[in-house]
Amino acid sequence: MRPNVEATPREVEAQATDGRPEPQTSPLEALTSELSGDMEAVNRLIRERMVSENAPRIPEVTAHLVEAGGKRLRPLLTIAAARLCGYSGEHHLHLAAAVEFIHTATLLHDDVVDESERRRGRPTANLLWDNKSSVLVGDYLFARSFQLMVEIGSLRVLDILANASAVIAEGEVLQLTAASNIDTSESIYLQVIRGKTAALFAAATEAGAEVAGASGEQVAALAAYGDALGLAFQITDDVLDYGGRSARLGKNAGDDFRERKLTLPVIRAIAAGGEADRPFWTRTIARGDQREGDLEEALSLMARHRALESAHETALAYAARARTVLASVPAHPLRDQLETLADFVVSRAA
Amino acid sequence: MRPNVEATPREVEAQATDGRPEPQTSPLEALTSELSGDMEAVNRLIRERMVSENAPRIPEVTAHLVEAGGKRLRPLLTIAAARLCGYSGEHHLHLAAAVEFIHTATLLHDDVVDESERRRGRPTANLLWDNKSSVLVGDYLFARSFQLMVEIGSLRVLDILANASAVIAEGEVLQLTAASNIDTSESIYLQVIRGKTAALFAAATEAGAEVAGASGEQVAALAAYGDALGLAFQITDDVLDYGGRSARLGKNAGDDFRERKLTLPVIRAIAAGGEADRPFWTRTIARGDQREGDLEEALSLMARHRALESAHETALAYAARARTVLASVPAHPLRDQLETLADFVVSRAA
Repeated sequence: MRPNVEATPREVEAQATDGRPEPQTSPLEALTSELSGDMEAVNRLIRERMVSENAPRIPEVTAHLVEAGGKRLRPLLTIAAARLCGYSGEHHLHLAAAVEFIHTATLLHDDVVDESERRRGRPTANLLWDNKSSVLVGDYLFARSFQLMVEIGSLRVLDILANASAVIAEGEVLQLTAASNIDTSESIYLQVIRGKTAALFAAATEAGAEVAGASGEQVAALAAYGDALGLAFQITDDVLDYGGRSARLGKNAGDDFRERKLTLPVIRAIAAGGEADRPFWTRTIARGDQREGDLEEALSLMARHRALESAHETALAYAARARTVLASVPAHPLRDQLETLADFVVSRAA
Repeated sequence: MRPNVEATPREVEAQATDGRPEPQTSPLEALTSELSGDMEAVNRLIRERMVSENAPRIPEVTAHLVEAGGKRLRPLLTIAAARLCGYSGEHHLHLAAAVEFIHTATLLHDDVVDESERRRGRPTANLLWDNKSSVLVGDYLFARSFQLMVEIGSLRVLDILANASAVIAEGEVLQLTAASNIDTSESIYLQVIRGKTAALFAAATEAGAEVAGASGEQVAALAAYGDALGLAFQITDDVLDYGGRSARLGKNAGDDFRERKLTLPVIRAIAAGGEADRPFWTRTIARGDQREGDLEEALSLMARHRALESAHETALAYAARARTVLASVPAHPLRDQLETLADFVVSRAA
C-alpha cells in the first residue's frame, strides 16, 4: 500500500499526468507520518471491528475497500483535531474508526447508486459481489460505527455524528434529484457537496475537538475548518474531473460530464454562457444525448467562460477560510500542518 | 387506513382465506386502541421527522411506505413496555418513532436486496422510484432515527439500538449467503430471523423499559419477551408462506420457495426427508431449477414429514416462552395484553 495513494482514481490520474515529478513528501504524508502511532492504532481497531463471526461475507467486502489504499484522510482529521486540542486519552481512536466506517459505508452505497465499476483503481464491491452485499454490508458498517460512538460515551459526539449522517444522506438524495437539471443553483450544489464531503470532514474535526474536551470556541473553529476544507476538497475534485484548471484531461476525466452531474464548473459555464450555449447543455446534460466531441466542446465552452479557473478560485477561497478559522486555536505544530493541508488539497487542481 | 391491516400481504391473505369470520377485535387492535393517545403522538412525530426541507424526494418515498397501513407493531411494543413499567414522560414517543424509522429503513433496503415489486399490497419504492432512492432514503431514515435516539439522552438506550442495528445487518447478510444452501442449519436460521425480526422487537421492548427507568430484572424480562415474540412472529410468517399449518395456499403463498429461502418448514422437511427427498431439494432450492408442480410437490413432502406442524409447534413454544418471561414483571393490564398478543401472533398460522 503506497501511503501517498489518493482517494479517487481521478486524483491518482491527476498526479500521474501533470508532468511534474511528485514532491518527496506532501503535507498529507507529513501529517500521516506525524500521527503514525495513532493511525496504526486506528487501523488495528478498524480491522478488529469490521469482523463478523457469523457472516464471513462482511469482512470480505469490507477488506476489499478498507485495505484498498485509501489515505484515511477523515480519521486523520479526527486524530489531528484531538491531538491539537491536547488530548491524551484513547477515545479519539474509536471516533476515528467510527468516522472511517461511516465513510466506507457511504462509498459502498454510492457505488450501488452510481452503478460504479471501479473505485481506487479496483473493481467495486457491487461488481465483485453484488448490489445486495454492498447495501447490507454498508448498513453493517453504519451499525458498527454507531456502536463505536456509543463506547466513547459522549452524547455530544453522538449528536455531531447523527447530524452529519442526516446531512450526508440528504445531500446524496439531493444529488440524485439534481442530476441532469441544468437549472441547479450554486446553493443546491453547495448542499450536495456538504453532504457528499464537507459534513463528514466537519464532524471529524468537530468531534475530535469535542472528545478532547476543548472549549466551545475551539470546537466551533475546528468544525468550521473541517467544513471549509471539505468544500475546498470537493470543488477541487470537481475541477480535476475536467482535467484541472488547465483542462489537461487524464484517463478518467469527463466522468461527471458523462454522468450529467451539475458540478460547479458546469454550473458556472451554463450561467456565463447564457442563451447561446443553452441548447448544447440542454442536449448533453438535460437530455443526455451525448456524441463524439461533446466533452471537448464542453471544455471549450468552459475555457471561453473561465469556468474551471473560476471554480478553482472558489476552492482557493474555501482553503483560505479554512486557514483563517484556525487562527482562534492556540499555536501548535499540528495547527500549522492543518493550515498547510488546506493549501495542499486545492493545489492538486492548479 | 384500516387499523387491523397486517404487515405483509401474506398475512392479509391468510386472514382473507381462512374461511372463518374475522374476530371483532384482535388482541393487536385492542392493544393499539388501549394506547391510541401515545400512538397518535408517535404518528405525528414520524410525519414531522420524515420531512426534509432540502430533498422533497425523501418524504415522498417515506410517505409511500409509512402511510401504507403498516400496523406499527414495533413502536406499539415500545410504548407498551414503557407504560407497563410505569413511565409517564415523553421519551418513549421518540424511541417508538426511532424504532419505526429503523424498521422502515430496513424495509426499503430489503426491497432493493430482494428485488421486490410489492409490499403491503402496493408497488415498492424501488419500483415506483428507483433502487437509488430506496438505498439513500433508507440511509436518511437511519440517520433520523439516530438523531431521535440522541434526543432521548440515554447512552443505555443508544447502546441497545446500536447493538440491534448490528444484529439486523449481520442477519441480513447471513440470509443472503445462506439463500439456496440446503445445508443451512436451524441455528443459522435462528440467527437470520433474529436479525430480520427478533432483534428489533427485543430492542423495542428492552429500550421501552429502559427509558421508563425500570429495574434491571424488568428490562431483561422485556428484552426476553421481545426476542421470543419476534421469533414466534417470524416463524409463523414462514409457516404462513406455505399456507399455514394446514397448507391452504393463498395468492402470495410460495414466495419463499420461489426465492429459494431456507426457512424453518423447508429445513425441517429436508432433515426429515433424508437421501430420498434430497434430489428434489437440490434441484429446486440449491440449483433453482423449478418447474410446474414443484411447489405442490414441496407441500406434499412437508405434509409427509409434518414440517409445517412441527415449525408451527416451535413458534408456539416461543410464544409460550414470551408469556413465561413476563411473569417477573409486576401484574398490570398491559402485561396481560402482551401475553395475549404472543398467542395471537402464532394463532395466525393455526
